[in-house]
Amino acid sequence: MNRRTFLKSVPAFTVLAGTASSLAQDLEPITLAKPETDGGKSVLAALKERRTTRNIREKALPPQTLSNLLWGAFGVNRENEPFRGPGRTAASASNSQEIDLYVALPEGVYLYEAVGHRLTPVVAGDFRRRSGRRAAARAPVNIFYVVDIAKYKKAPFQEPGLRDPEVQKSYYYVATGLIASNVYLFAASQGLAAHFHNCDKRNTPKEFKLRPEQRVLFAQTVGYPA
Amino acid sequence: MNRRTFLKSVPAFTVLAGTASSLAQDLEPITLAKPETDGGKSVLAALKERRTTRNIREKALPPQTLSNLLWGAFGVNRENEPFRGPGRTAASASNSQEIDLYVALPEGVYLYEAVGHRLTPVVAGDFRRRSGRRAAARAPVNIFYVVDIAKYKKAPFQEPGLRDPEVQKSYYYVATGLIASNVYLFAASQGLAAHFHNCDKRNTPKEFKLRPEQRVLFAQTVGYPA
Repeated sequence: MNRRTFLKSVPAFTVLAGTASSLAQDLEPITLAKPETDGGKSVLAALKERRTTRNIREKALPPQTLSNLLWGAFGVNRENEPFRGPGRTAASASNSQEIDLYVALPEGVYLYEAVGHRLTPVVAGDFRRRSGRRAAARAPVNIFYVVDIAKYKKAPFQEPGLRDPEVQKSYYYVATGLIASNVYLFAASQGLAAHFHNCDKRNTPKEFKLRPEQRVLFAQTVGYPA
Repeated sequence: MNRRTFLKSVPAFTVLAGTASSLAQDLEPITLAKPETDGGKSVLAALKERRTTRNIREKALPPQTLSNLLWGAFGVNRENEPFRGPGRTAASASNSQEIDLYVALPEGVYLYEAVGHRLTPVVAGDFRRRSGRRAAARAPVNIFYVVDIAKYKKAPFQEPGLRDPEVQKSYYYVATGLIASNVYLFAASQGLAAHFHNCDKRNTPKEFKLRPEQRVLFAQTVGYPA
């Protein structure tokens, strides 16, 4: 059965994706390859190339590139920081590491677990359209930035203001930008395209099975430039 | 008259700094060298080295390094974007380019003008202590992130929510993080130290002669690691 026949015989594909396939257990965890820690353009050369590119192809990223992308975004770059736990590629408020990356691939949404460097299934089905219409909905990778407010209570440093919702807001949006810039520069260093933007905040909390302390903030689309 | 004698004979040095020397016209504009757009570590190697370093030496940065740092942070990397004006190394909400960098050097505070790539005097005197105590107060460069809300009205794209103060807040904190990560990765690529942190928001608006639409958000200290 070729692709066309399959699509013809199963017109309710989206319904299928929304029911039987939406169970996370239908998805296997993805063990990401060990990230490469060199190669590609210099930081200065990537800064020269940094730009927002909205037109992104459907073509999938090679597994090693996906691994490098997520590690670069907010991976563990120091295993044993004394009294602080693992160090990350982006700073966070009081080292709370409050942002989680929910990664929408064509087959489903995964949580990026930096410790262990793997993708844990959240929900099966194609939710890339929650990132945006047109190119974003078909791009190979969409990263959703999700804050977990509960992490501020567990932060190793309890600095003044860390419990104040307004202060928290300033912190988690900055933390989002810090990660997003890592993504922009990684993309620029590899000839990839990236686009940081608003996203669906209405449907995603339920679809991504978020807890009340979690909030979807923004999304970033990554792939090959069109 | 050696330094010790001078200090003894002028115990009111801080008063001097706050009066005669605090006029911006005492400072000359600094024309920054043309930024280098290659050299230093790769993006992946810089991500591996990315960390917060609070212990920073007093030693000044060479002029070329200061130029590269500010250009990398939020400089112009595309001169002629159709319908959008100059492109910058960091994204911003609706391309509003809403963040201004106020740069505190030992002799005074300057506004970084990305178009023209120069530092325009704001106020003479040493205001690095407004960034933080200890190492931050003596580090060669302190960058203050200042949002100019008025720029949202002039943005080339007037997307929904751009006039909503809560939405604006999410945008300008993300924009701050995007720039701050450029600084972190540039520093990591050059073996420099960087530290993003809170700063004095009480005295700086008046001292930096900010308009009501401007707000000091955060600061970032850069220099050589101790």
